[in-house]
Formats: sequence, C-alpha cells, structure tokens
Amino acid sequence: MLEDSVRNRAYRKAIFDNVDSFKGKIVLDVGAGSGILSVFCAQAGASKVYAVEASETYKIAEEIAKENGFEHVIKVIHGRVEDVELEEKVDVIVSEWMGFYLLHEGMLDSVIVARDKFLSANGLMFPDSATLYAAPCSVPNMFEDWEDVEGISMKSFAQKLRHQASQKPVTAIIKSDHILAIPEAFCWFDLKEVKVSDLDTITVKHIFVSTKAARYQGISIWFTCTFPSSVTEPVILSTDPDDEPTHWKQTTIVLPEEVAVEEGEPVAVEVNLKRTTESERRYNIEVTMLDPNEIDHPEYCSCYMTKCILAKAVLKKYENNEFDN
Amino acid sequence: MLEDSVRNRAYRKAIFDNVDSFKGKIVLDVGAGSGILSVFCAQAGASKVYAVEASETYKIAEEIAKENGFEHVIKVIHGRVEDVELEEKVDVIVSEWMGFYLLHEGMLDSVIVARDKFLSANGLMFPDSATLYAAPCSVPNMFEDWEDVEGISMKSFAQKLRHQASQKPVTAIIKSDHILAIPEAFCWFDLKEVKVSDLDTITVKHIFVSTKAARYQGISIWFTCTFPSSVTEPVILSTDPDDEPTHWKQTTIVLPEEVAVEEGEPVAVEVNLKRTTESERRYNIEVTMLDPNEIDHPEYCSCYMTKCILAKAVLKKYENNEFDN
Repeated sequence: MLEDSVRNRAYRKAIFDNVDSFKGKIVLDVGAGSGILSVFCAQAGASKVYAVEASETYKIAEEIAKENGFEHVIKVIHGRVEDVELEEKVDVIVSEWMGFYLLHEGMLDSVIVARDKFLSANGLMFPDSATLYAAPCSVPNMFEDWEDVEGISMKSFAQKLRHQASQKPVTAIIKSDHILAIPEAFCWFDLKEVKVSDLDTITVKHIFVSTKAARYQGISIWFTCTFPSSVTEPVILSTDPDDEPTHWKQTTIVLPEEVAVEEGEPVAVEVNLKRTTESERRYNIEVTMLDPNEIDHPEYCSCYMTKCILAKAVLKKYENNEFDN
Repeated sequence: MLEDSVRNRAYRKAIFDNVDSFKGKIVLDVGAGSGILSVFCAQAGASKVYAVEASETYKIAEEIAKENGFEHVIKVIHGRVEDVELEEKVDVIVSEWMGFYLLHEGMLDSVIVARDKFLSANGLMFPDSATLYAAPCSVPNMFEDWEDVEGISMKSFAQKLRHQASQKPVTAIIKSDHILAIPEAFCWFDLKEVKVSDLDTITVKHIFVSTKAARYQGISIWFTCTFPSSVTEPVILSTDPDDEPTHWKQTTIVLPEEVAVEEGEPVAVEVNLKRTTESERRYNIEVTMLDPNEIDHPEYCSCYMTKCILAKAVLKKYENNEFDN
C-alpha cells in the first residue's frame, strides 16, 4: 500500500498546498500505519502530531518518525482511537481510512468517532469529502476471454468463475474503455458531518444510458476523496478507471450472464450496500437489474426509448419558448 | 494460472509440433487441473487421455473435456496418481508440475512415481528436462526505493521488509537489467531418469562475475523446461527474466544488507535448496556469501582479480602455442 504513489502524492500535495493549515497546529493521524502522513504533517510545520495506530505497525511509525528527525513532534500511540484519550483538541485530522470501494474493511467509523471526540469546532478533515461512483461495464476476463483459450473452449469454467464472483465482488483494474455509460455519483459524504449510521445502508437506483454497442457484464464501483483547500484547487484522490491506477483498483459485481446492449440503450439497476451482521467493516453488495420499461426515467434521460426522445423534444421546445407563441 | 498464456502456448506448441507422438497414443496427464493439456493431447489425436487430478478441480476437467467434444477420449480420474491404477501402460506423460523456482509446492515427485508406474519403455515425457538457474541481482524495491518516498526516508522500514524476505524468498518479476552477471545453470534434471531422492538437496557453489557497477542485493532463481521433439527445435518454456513474464515470475533471496560491486568483481555464493522436514513439497533455501579470495576460481574466470587475469593470459598463450617456440 505504501507503494501506491498516487495515494502518497495526493496526501502530500493536499498537505503541502495548505501549509498554513498545519503550521504550529495540533494534528491527529487516525490509523497512522507506518506514519508517512504524520511525517508529511510534521514537515508542513505541525507542532504536534498524534499518530494513533492499533496494529503492531505502530513500531514502524515510531522508527520512521525518528529516522526523519520528528520524534519530538510525532507522538505515536499504540491503540484504537476509540480507546485513546488526548490531553487536547486537535486542529486537523488526517487519515487514510479508505477501503476497497471506500467502505470495505475501511476505517471511516473510527475516523467519525475520532472527529466527534477530538476535532476542535473549526477543525479540518483531510480528506473532507468522499464520493462513490457506479457504472455498467464489460468484464471480458469473466466472459469472452474463456471462449477460446489457445483453441480450447472454457465457457463452463468462466461460468464457475462468475459464480465465485457472485459470492464476493472482484477487486481488479477495469480499463476505462470497458465502462459503458457515464458514471453515476450515487453517494457523497461530507466527512465533517457524516454519522456512523449514515453508512449502514447505501442505495442507488439509476438508469444508465449505454454510450456504445457492447457486452454489459457487470457493475463497477469506485470512489474519489477530496481535500480541503483555502488556496489552490482542492486535491482529489481518484480511483476512477480513467485515472492512474491505485491499489484500490475498482470493485466489480459481475453479472451471472451478460446482456448485449446497443448505443443509447437504457440500463436500469439498483445497487445496495449494506453492512454485514458479522462485521461492521464489511458490506454485502446487492445488484438488482430493473426493467427500464417499468421505472420512471429522469427528466432529461438521453436513452433511445420513444418516451424519452419525445419528452426531451418537448422540454427543448419549452426551453426555446416555442410554446409561448 | 490458466491465464498464463506463455505456459499455455509452450505446451500447445510442444504438443502440436509433435502430433506423431500423440496420434493414436495413450496419454497420462498428471495433475490435470482444468484439463487444458488433456484437451491439447486429444486435439493432437490421442486415442485415450487419462487426466488424473486430486483436487475438486477434476469436475472442471470433466466439463471442459465435454465442452470440447472429447468426453469419449479424456477419462478424468479423481485421485492422487500415487493411488490410481490404470489398465494399461501409457505412451506419453504430460504434466504441468512446476512450482515456484521449479520445486516449491511442485508435483515432480508425483510425476516421477507416475513415470515409474505407467510409462512404457520407449514412452515420452512432456516436458522431458528442467534446468535451474541463479544469478546475483539488484532488488531496488527492498533497498533504494525506500530511501526517498515522496520526501520521506523509510530505510528502517525497508530493513524490516528484508527481514521478512529472509524468512521466505520473494516471488516477483526481476527486470532483466537488474541481473548483474551471466546466470549459472546449476542443476539439470533429465525427467526420464531423475529419482525422488535426487530432489532432496540441491547445491550450487559459483563465482559470478559482475557485468557492471551495481548494487548487489540478492540472488534470483528461475527455471526452464524443455519438451522432446523429433521434428523441430525443441520448445522451451522459460521463466528467465529476459523472457516474457509467467505466473512463476522469479524467486529472489534478498540479502539483509547490499554490497556495492564493480564491473568484473567476483561474487562468490553457495545456494542450498533442501526439502523441509514438515512438507516434502517445500524447500528451505540457504544462501551463503563466500569470500572470493578463499575459494578456487574456475579456469577461465573473467573476474578482475590478479590471479585470474594472470591465469587467463597464461592460458591464452598456451592456446596460441606461444610457449612452443
């Protein structure tokens, strides 16, 4: 994970673009790991960094702090942030808490607890917002790649792979040209406001419109995180298939059978993320394919269905005031 | 593993280049997995293929045989080849038995048992030989990559990584320009002759000569397998860093501390592969760095030590008959 340079560069830039938010300030690093973010904050001029880490990695954080000459600035605390007490409120919370598809095995619950316990009234969160995206996609390595493996048909094996994938979403890079429609930002968290209970169930019901003729084989999910900035454009850490890959890759729910779609065809789907009962840090993802004939399309739907083409034409006339005369 | 196209293509070519060895013949596929090699053999005209697979994967092999129309040629047998009885001797044994660095979790023992039980006197092994190679190398992601991670020194962490790597060799792609000397083929197995006891301990003691000034940080090990051929150049399945990557990658034993070497510098090393007592399919690898001043160099050693330069000059004079006059 440390070798994820996209991640490291995003945090570094977000912190160094905003040194005024760190200079002389008290910082809390939740889930500090090897302490790399704590060192960024110290380098940016923080007067104190509390680096809280529950695993044995805290020892590495101590060594890295020392190796970089910040042993008097960074105080590594071995423990869960839920159990920790600090002597003071903090000005900034930094944390790299994001799991696969943002929430899987992530630490957002802990960050929320830390915020409510320790962040001063006008304190900053780094990052301060997160957005979840979804889009229909092709997943050739679960379908057509198995139709001819050096001259051998292995479709029955691909079916087994998909059965496995239906038990557990697949973490893998999706090529951007395998995304079949404009992605939908279906959930946005303000990290200064979000509550733990907001994360219990997340639902999106959306009609995507296929941008090309393709084999619709799955729904891919990813996220972006945005950092606060008072001076420059906010830094965005993106795990979008269009951007440089990260260790988060994308998360794909593979359909048991593919669907051929045409350009302009509506793809209606409901995605449900729900905490599992066994672990609060894990989710079940349920994808339901909906019938585009049976649900309401949005006002400006660009799909090829007659009702949407007509509705769009009418709306356009209204906009042009053609009904005024 | 099925997605390893280098592997699949090598087996396919070795079999299809030699259809006469398969046409109308009885074949045994040891550890058939999903049955891909069995189908190659059936496509090449085998009259019968016994596909022996101990794991539940045998069910996939049955389906793949059927999907490709060879359910009457390929007989899938669920069991360990050691426990299986066949009604007849076989003309060919095909097997993809190779583990990491050839032997780790490999199935060569089982292939040897199968050969001794079932292969007819003039039968063929596919592949029929295997060679182990070693070379000193650089492993920057265990050393210098950690000297500056976005402006942070993480050398103490790299040291921990190397400590971990000393418990268990690293399976990873080594770039060919990180190989520091001409590789040494230190062990060759004739698969028609090799005995199980030949695999208990394998040792190489060699003086490599560095081809460039570099940071010597590990010893990398890999293998090639060669297939019999009566008609064309034998097919070689290579896992050499110079060749297209495979899922076997390379196996690297990382040194706890690096050594700067100059061009022409001798790097003397002893590598010991020894079966563990806990599992016959696992090995301990021990690397001992030797002092080039204390061991005999080969006759034509190209290292920069005075004794080798002198010896080479003398040998050259002998070759040119300069001592005859």
